[in-house]
Parts: sequence; C-alpha cells; structure tokens
Amino acid sequence: MPDENKLELVLPDGSKRIVNTGTTGYQVAESISPRLAREALSVTLNNEILDLNRELPASGSFKINTWDDEDGKYAFWHSSAHLLAEAAQELYPDVRFGIGPAIATGFYYDMDFGDRRITPEDMQRIEEKMTELARAKAEFTRVEISKDEAITYFREKNDPYKLDLLKDLEDGTITLYKQGNFTDLCRGPHIPNTDRVKAIKLMSLAGAYWRGDSDSKQLTRIYGVSFPKKSMLDEYLALLEEAKKRDHKKLGKELGIYMIDSMIGTGLPVWLPNGTILRRTLEAFLRDEQVDRGYQEVITPHIGNLSLYKTSGHYPYYADSQYDPIKVDDEEYLLKPMNCPHHHRIYSNKMHSYRDLPVRLSEFGTVYRYEQSGELTGLTRVRGFTQDDAHIYCTQDQLKDEIKNCIELTQLVFSTFDMPVDIRLSYRDDDETKFGGDAEYWERAQKEIRDVVDEMGLDYTVAHGEASFYGPKIDFIIRDAIGRKWQLGTVQVDYVMPERFDLTYVGADNQKHRPVIIHRAPFGSMERFVSILIEHFAGNFPLWLSPVQAVLIPVSDAFNALCEDYLKALKKEGMRVEINDRSEQIGAKIREAETSKVPYMLIVGDKEKQNRSVSVRKHRKGDIGQFALTDLINRLKDEINNKVLPDN
Amino acid sequence: MPDENKLELVLPDGSKRIVNTGTTGYQVAESISPRLAREALSVTLNNEILDLNRELPASGSFKINTWDDEDGKYAFWHSSAHLLAEAAQELYPDVRFGIGPAIATGFYYDMDFGDRRITPEDMQRIEEKMTELARAKAEFTRVEISKDEAITYFREKNDPYKLDLLKDLEDGTITLYKQGNFTDLCRGPHIPNTDRVKAIKLMSLAGAYWRGDSDSKQLTRIYGVSFPKKSMLDEYLALLEEAKKRDHKKLGKELGIYMIDSMIGTGLPVWLPNGTILRRTLEAFLRDEQVDRGYQEVITPHIGNLSLYKTSGHYPYYADSQYDPIKVDDEEYLLKPMNCPHHHRIYSNKMHSYRDLPVRLSEFGTVYRYEQSGELTGLTRVRGFTQDDAHIYCTQDQLKDEIKNCIELTQLVFSTFDMPVDIRLSYRDDDETKFGGDAEYWERAQKEIRDVVDEMGLDYTVAHGEASFYGPKIDFIIRDAIGRKWQLGTVQVDYVMPERFDLTYVGADNQKHRPVIIHRAPFGSMERFVSILIEHFAGNFPLWLSPVQAVLIPVSDAFNALCEDYLKALKKEGMRVEINDRSEQIGAKIREAETSKVPYMLIVGDKEKQNRSVSVRKHRKGDIGQFALTDLINRLKDEINNKVLPDN
Repeated sequence: MPDENKLELVLPDGSKRIVNTGTTGYQVAESISPRLAREALSVTLNNEILDLNRELPASGSFKINTWDDEDGKYAFWHSSAHLLAEAAQELYPDVRFGIGPAIATGFYYDMDFGDRRITPEDMQRIEEKMTELARAKAEFTRVEISKDEAITYFREKNDPYKLDLLKDLEDGTITLYKQGNFTDLCRGPHIPNTDRVKAIKLMSLAGAYWRGDSDSKQLTRIYGVSFPKKSMLDEYLALLEEAKKRDHKKLGKELGIYMIDSMIGTGLPVWLPNGTILRRTLEAFLRDEQVDRGYQEVITPHIGNLSLYKTSGHYPYYADSQYDPIKVDDEEYLLKPMNCPHHHRIYSNKMHSYRDLPVRLSEFGTVYRYEQSGELTGLTRVRGFTQDDAHIYCTQDQLKDEIKNCIELTQLVFSTFDMPVDIRLSYRDDDETKFGGDAEYWERAQKEIRDVVDEMGLDYTVAHGEASFYGPKIDFIIRDAIGRKWQLGTVQVDYVMPERFDLTYVGADNQKHRPVIIHRAPFGSMERFVSILIEHFAGNFPLWLSPVQAVLIPVSDAFNALCEDYLKALKKEGMRVEINDRSEQIGAKIREAETSKVPYMLIVGDKEKQNRSVSVRKHRKGDIGQFALTDLINRLKDEINNKVLPDN
Repeated sequence: MPDENKLELVLPDGSKRIVNTGTTGYQVAESISPRLAREALSVTLNNEILDLNRELPASGSFKINTWDDEDGKYAFWHSSAHLLAEAAQELYPDVRFGIGPAIATGFYYDMDFGDRRITPEDMQRIEEKMTELARAKAEFTRVEISKDEAITYFREKNDPYKLDLLKDLEDGTITLYKQGNFTDLCRGPHIPNTDRVKAIKLMSLAGAYWRGDSDSKQLTRIYGVSFPKKSMLDEYLALLEEAKKRDHKKLGKELGIYMIDSMIGTGLPVWLPNGTILRRTLEAFLRDEQVDRGYQEVITPHIGNLSLYKTSGHYPYYADSQYDPIKVDDEEYLLKPMNCPHHHRIYSNKMHSYRDLPVRLSEFGTVYRYEQSGELTGLTRVRGFTQDDAHIYCTQDQLKDEIKNCIELTQLVFSTFDMPVDIRLSYRDDDETKFGGDAEYWERAQKEIRDVVDEMGLDYTVAHGEASFYGPKIDFIIRDAIGRKWQLGTVQVDYVMPERFDLTYVGADNQKHRPVIIHRAPFGSMERFVSILIEHFAGNFPLWLSPVQAVLIPVSDAFNALCEDYLKALKKEGMRVEINDRSEQIGAKIREAETSKVPYMLIVGDKEKQNRSVSVRKHRKGDIGQFALTDLINRLKDEINNKVLPDN
C-alpha cells in the first residue's frame, strides 16, 4: 500500500525517486545535481508543465525541463513576456495589457499605450528597463484566487482587456502570477525568478487587433527574444543575420526559383525555369529510388468528387482547410486536398491476391488547401503544394518491413542533403473527436511504429495528439539553418481507410482480408522542401541540383565558336551549361556567375584552344587550374553522380 | 470588260476556264475528263458547295469534289440519308421525318415510326430497299419554293417535324430536294443521282429526342454508311473490325494504361502505372527535344485568379466550357482552362531586353474544361487533360524562324511514331464576335504562317473560321488506324495577348516594343495523343515506350536466382524488366506475356546458365534465338535509343 506522505516519480530514463509530499520540482533537481537545479526552468509531471517552485501534487512520470526542452524554453519566454510588461508599466504607468505569450522564437506582449506611438527609442528604454528588472532577481509567485476576486483586482487596476478575458473563464480557481510590481492573469508556468534571464533583445513592433478582431482596438505588439546566456543572444543574432542572407524568399527571387503573383493567385507559387529544374531533378532522384524499391507511379486528377472525401471522412470535418466545392451538373467536386482517396480507388480498381502485395502507388500529387492569407509565407506556407506522396497497401505480416523501408528511404533522402533530422512518433491523444477508428487499431499501429524504430535503434521523441486522424505517424523534423524546426517527411500507418474504402485482397486462405495502408512522403512537400533546401545551402546547391552547372566564358569573340563546340560536348553528357558571349569584361562575367551561384566557370582563350582545355574557376573558391575538356567532363560527372555536397 | 454571257472559273491549280452562263458543274467536270465527271459528287464555288447539276451562278474559285474531298463525301452521305428516308417511307408509309444529316463517318436519319419498334430485321429490309432504290438511278432535284408553299406541302404530307423546322426558317426562298417518291426540306447539296451509291450498310439504332430536348418525343435514329464502290464498304467494315481490336478504351483497360472511375470524377482519366510510364516517357522525349531547342520548363498552379481570364478575354465568353469559379476570401478562381495567361505573367515578371528573346516557356500543364457528359469518350474527349504547352515570346524579326522551328519539332514528333499527318491552316472568318484583335494583325499573322509553310514546301489545306480567337493556327491533323481524323499538334500566332497582358521588351533602340507570341503543342493533349498512340500501334508499342520491355522467365525455380542477377544487369541499363517466377508452365507464362504485349520474353534455363545467355522470344514473332546477355543488352539499347518502330 503506497505511503500517503510519499510520492513516486518516474524519470525519463525509467529510474524512480521517492520524495516527501510538499517537495518542489526545484528540490528534486537539486537532489540530482546543483547544475541541473541552476539550469532547470520548469518540470513536467504527467504531461502537465509546472513551476519549478511548486509543490509536486502527485506521483507519476516526471521530467525536469531545461533550455534544451521545448517546455523549458516556453516557460522562459513566457516569463520574459511578463518582464516586458513590467518594464512597460514602470516606464508608461497608463499602459493597459492584452495578452503576452511565448512563441516559436521568443515572445510578445500586446499592449495599449493610449495615444502614445512607441518608437525605436522607447523600445531601447523598455529593453534596458527589462534588463534592470531581471537583475533584481524577483521571484515569479503563483497566486490562486476566486474569479470574483480576480475581477475585483483587475477592475481596481483598471485593466479592461484582462476583465474581457476573465469573462470567458469558468468560475472556480483563477491563477495570477506576480513578479516585482507586476501581476498578470496567467495559467503559468514560469521560471523561478527573473535573474535566469541574462540577455534580452526586443526585435520588432506590430499592430494587433484585440482578439484578432478588426472591429476592436488595435494594440501595440512588441516582439522580443531572451536567453539564459549572453553568448546565446549573440549567436542568435548572428544566425538571424545569416538567415536573412539565406532567406528563400530573397534567394528564390534572385536565383529565379519561383514567383508568387497576385494576378495568378494568393499563396500559389509558380515554378520559374531554374526552380523547375531543381524540382524535376529532385523528383527524378526520388523516382529512381522508388522504382528500385518496387513503387509504381500514377497520375490522378486535381479535383475529386465530393463522395471521395465524404467516404474518407475528410469532408465536412476538414472543410475549413478546403476550397469550396465546385458544382458540375448534379455532382460536386473538391479541388484535391489530398491524394489518398484517389489512390485507394486505384487499388480497388482490380482484384488483388496476397501474392500481388505490397502494392506501392506513388504520385507527385499537387493538392490545394486553404490557409488564411496572413499565414502565407514564400514556399513554406502556401495554398497549393506538391506532395511526393505514396500509399503502400500490404498485409499485416508485411507491415513492419514496409515501415522500415519507408524510414530508410526517408533517411537516405535527408542524408543526401546532409540535413539534420529528428524523429518524432506522433500518437493520438484521448480526444476521440479528432481521431477515427477503433482504439484497438490505434494501439496496434502505435506499437508497430515504435517497435520498428526501436529495432532500427533510432532516437525519437513521442508527441501525443499529433497523429493523423486515421493513424499514428513517424515524423521527420528538420532543423534549418537558424535552428527552426520543420516537419518534412512522414510515414503513417492506417487501419481506418481500408475499412472506409472497403479495400480487400484475397489471402492464401482464399478469403477476403483488409490490407493495411502506409502513407508516406519523404520530402513532404516539394515547395516546403525546396524552401528549406535553398536556406540549407544558402543557394549554393550541389552540382547535381544546380539549375546551371557551368558557364563557358570566351576571353574574346574569337573563341565563341570553340565555346559552342565545348557546349555541345558538355550538353551531350547531359550537363546544364550556358555560354556567356556578351561583349563584357571577363571580370564582369565572373562576378555575374558568382552572383548567380553557378558552380563552375570555364574560361576559354588561346592557351586553352591549343590543347582543347578550359581554365576552371569554382564558385566561392576561385581558380582551380587548367583541365583538358575530357578530364573536366569526368570530374563533373563524378561530382554529379556521387551527389557531392558543396564545401561550406 | 467581262463578257456577261461568260463565267471565269479559277481551278485549285490556279488555271482558269471560261464557260458560258448556264453551264453546270457536271458539264465542267465532263469537259475536263469523263472519269472526273463519273466521280464528281459536288462542286465548291467561292466556298459554297453546290449540286453538280446546278447552273453555276457566278465566276470565282472553283473546285470539283469527289469522294476524296470532305465536301464530296458530305454530299454523298447526305444524299444517302435521303435514300434511307425514302426506303423507310416505302416500307412504313406512316413514318414521319425529323432530320437526316451526314456525319463524320456516314449519316443518320431521325424518324418517328409511331408505335413500331424497329428491329434488326426491319433494318435489313430498309437496307435492301435502299439498295433497290439506289439502282433506280433517281435524280436528286432541287426545288425552290416560298415558305408558305413549303408549309402547305408538309401540312398536306402531315409531317409535323418538318413544319416545326420551317417555323424557324426566315421567309423567302425555301429549298426542297426530291428523289423518286421522296421530297425533303433541305438546303442541299446532293449528288446527281442515287446510282452513285453502290454500297450501303445500316450500322445501328438509337433513340434521339426531337431537337435534343428530353421533354420532346423520342425518335428512332438509324445510322448508316455508304460508298461509291462495294470494295470500299468491305474495306470499311474490315477497318471497323480492326478498330474494335485497337480500341483504346478496351486496350487501355487490358494494358493498365488508364481508368475512369465515377467516384473520382466523370470524364477525369486516372493514369495507371503502365500509362504513367508511357506518359512520362513521352514527356521526357519531348522535354529533351525542347531543352535542345532552348525551351525553359515552368510549373504553374492548376487554378488561376479570374482576373487572368477576364484580361485574356476567355471569361465570360468561354464560361460554358469552364468549371464554375471557386470563391476564396474576396477573390474568385477558375480551375485552369488554359496555361497561356499564367505563362504571360511569368514573362512579365521581369524586364526583357531584345537580347533575351526568344523566351520559350514550356509546361506539361493540366487544364480542365467542361464537356457534356454525353460527349465524353475514353481518353479522347475528357474534362481534364494535359497540354504539352509552350509559349514563345519573340520579336517580329524572329517570328518566321520560330514558327519554322515549331513545325519541325511537331513533324519530328509525328515522324517518330510514323503517324500520317495533314497540315491545315486555320484562318479566321468574317464573324468578328468570334475573333479578337485588329484585322491588320490577322492579315499579317495569316500571311506569315502561310509564307512559312510555303517556304518549307509543305502541302496544306486552308480552313476559314477555324482559328483561335486570338490568332490563326497551323493544325496538324492525324489520320488514325481507321481513317478518322484528329487534330493533335498546333502552332498558333498571337498578336492579341501581348496587348491584353501589356507584354513588352526593350529593343536595340532602347524603346519598349510588343513581342509576338507563338502558342504551340506538338502532342496537343497527352490524353488524346496516348489514345491515338494505343490505336495506332494496337497496343504493340515500340520498345522505348513499352511499360514493361522484357520479362525474364526461369524454366524452373532453380533459375530464379540467375534471373534476379540478369534482372539487376538489365535494370542497371535503365530497362523496365520483370521476372515471372510464379509456379506455372513456361507456355502459360509466354501466353501471358504475349497478351500483355511485352516486346521481349527472355527464357533462362540450364543451357543459358552455362554461357550467361538468354533464349529470346519476340512478341508476335516467336523465338529469335539465343543471345549472350551482353549482346541482348546492346540489342535492346540500340532499339530503345533509335526508337525503332515495331514491325506490323
């Protein structure tokens, strides 16, 4: 029988700790190591994040969150938002407060400064005040009061926005958090004290309507970022500077990769010639790998009868992210929001024997999903994108091998580009409205994907509630050049759609059985992948991907004909080469090629004519010497065939 | 001063004939040669088709139409429809007549037989009666009467449908045509007499609502075909038999090329794995040719803002053939009915100097156009299809060379498949509502395309009124396996869209100029092209296009591993090869490969193992001997690289 004065905590490594009731997370951290106690920012108990200073309320799974954990960082930035509010209150006593959350990188606070327009100088002052307040080492204190008491408090404080927020809260206990002279309506959690915040930078200003409603008052949103070490801020600012240079919106335009044109459509990228080469090359790479692995490619229409999505259950439940149906005669069609139902119908177009399985149908399928116009960004968030989609229909016995093959293919893809990737198992949570199918299927599918990654010895995290509505997923999360994380590749197990689309195969027992479906997409979306590819390489693509692989530069018109001859030889080997025979100086031509990030510049003059050679300059490297044309061709072919990565 | 008793006729070869007024077309034919008079079916005078027996009403361009001319055939089949009506009237005196036109292959007549259901035996009797009436050599006589007289005539004849038709005709001269005991309301023209019809076959029966209105009475439509020689009918029936075997709907299913699934969508083909290989291979073939010719590929979304089509003028004028707009926020989008406006916007995305021109933008762009569900047929008439589209933006000086390049590329495409092709220049007619832009532009553009085909020494016909609404076209018309004609490739000159989209380039004079646009698509539509390709080759594709190029057949399980080894060697060379290692008899495996039209069967047993060879069977040819594996690979590579056509 458990001792009611003791709590049992299960740590992430499976070890257990027995502590007295009344112990705080901070004390547990301290008992593990003083350094951990110094770095701890919050704790997670049974999936709930708590203040470090709070007494642990129960036994259960327990984790101490530091800066390296999302949950730690979140508390840190959330606390920094409170610090921002406190500084503003000190400097501008009439300020009124909206909301101030942590976001993916940093935090913001929406504030009503009355008639005052906040200037860069104000930002500077607020930032200095925040630093001063942080140094004061004020504790974040949690206060539990009734809703009535909270209303009285904010009425006295004359804070209309907080009163507006309180209206929507249920009766019962309300929590406030207090540090120094500032008290906020807040669920928490927060870090122990302000002194953990060692470096602060206010980044930008924006207008934000209260509650996002354009009929309400526009507040001033101040964005900021903060760190537990000064060096981290410096690093972050350097990364940001680097990110600007790598920004795919900037490079995408400069390198002729894509355009977005409001006359064609909001959030609908158009692939320009260089982008089309990039995309087609990536597609060909994956297609070859898929053919080797027994995939069969198909092409399906870009619209589908509404009955497909009613059968799958995606309509009307996902209607918000879909374009409105188009009426055709007495039917209705959706601009295809996903390729799956089309593939399921291809599968059921003929009878399958267990001997035919797995059937692996792949498609570079363009899908269209509505996004708010404010959410749209370059190639990253768009309304039309192309999935490197595939659906594998297999028997239960084949499932694990097929999952493994999909993981290996995805790993191959990302290792080809030397992209750092994290694996996340996305499970369902207990919200049954978000997920289809029987609990039994879910248990089985979640166990199966976990077994496979365990057998493969891979590291992973588990995220509850992140599954597809038809099944759990293995998500591949890429860290980009400035440390942002992007979900790209995905492998999903689905026991739901085989039922809904009545998919069958005839087993060795001559009976009908349901196949299992794996949904998978290594790149995820060609648009998003290319945006990350551009930033990953800062536009300096590996030779095999470069839209223009080399430019021939005759030193004078006298060598134009020879360049034409070389061009033919290079093109015959399938290389993408151009001649720059405009009447400009060599230097200007080299600068132009450098700006266009062409990997090789091939200079041809008298010396080169004598022995059918070229003088070669490599992008960002300069002159690498004279090469016989045939040697150069072999060198480039090797570099292309081996998909050699550029030096960085 | 012209003699008013004489007419001057200009023959197609440019020669002139002076004839007396009152001369008939027949008399002119007779004066040229007795054989021509025997074969003549109608004449065309100043683009109007006339009866051979009619006195020529004016001077002008003059042509005698025989069976080899569409206009001759049309008169022949139209006259045969009257013969069908006469035969029905003889056998079933109570029959009432709807309409009876000539169609692409033959003719039909819609008739009201009251309560009688026409049986195959009736068809037989009617056919025999037609033949009997044809032998009677009754002349077709043209009668001109007033509308009132016509009403009186058909009222007395108790022919309600003809009276209904008469209601819509303007007052003035009405023409009737009479042969034997049958008189019809008809514009003509007709052949001189029934005896020209030497062979008749009634083909099928269908129900057809009067005036296509489902609220009106359903009439009986009898389809027939007729010929001036018995041997032609035999040939036609043999072709029809052959066509059934080649039917792309039948082969498309058997060979796994495509499917149409009502749950996915009406008239929306889905490319199955074998069809996808076929299509991708055709695309790659054209892409390579285009890259060689300086084209740049782009990819544009499948929807476009309505403003694009309002600017182009395609909306609302072509709204009937477009899907309804989709509302998105406060914008409207069309499922893309054509790629042109997207490409024009790409062109104007950056400034162009005359030195950058021509800009050649290509796209395999899928477009969606509404068609009546009754019009939809396999891959031939669909609601979504992929154009191998391109738009060339060039200066006036470059135009002719660019047109020539486009024609040459199109000719290369069709000669690669050994498809017979006719060239038609499609000009505008005088209906100004159908065509955009100034008359001056049209004159220029029509002259330019004619000049180019003349310079290239090509044969062509001219069709007035068949132009695009923005410019004249060079259309490439393919004759398929049973002689039907299909418009596939097209090259179009456009002076209109550069104005509407305000496209410019900066000339050598540093001033802004308008480029000219060429729209071109050699295949036309991938869907339609593949349907014709299937029928052209009866599914026996050339090796380079075959979805499965060879199947390895081990004579027993003992040779499976060797086959796997061979498979690897063949795949390494990029070949599409499978192994059939199921436990079946060799004979069965060979039959299966023959049915699937796999070009090569590679049989592997003990003998082959000893010297690393295969015994080769060629599809439809049988055993062609034993080949060392390396020799076979070279043989297949040659056949693929040279795009060798199959023997037929």
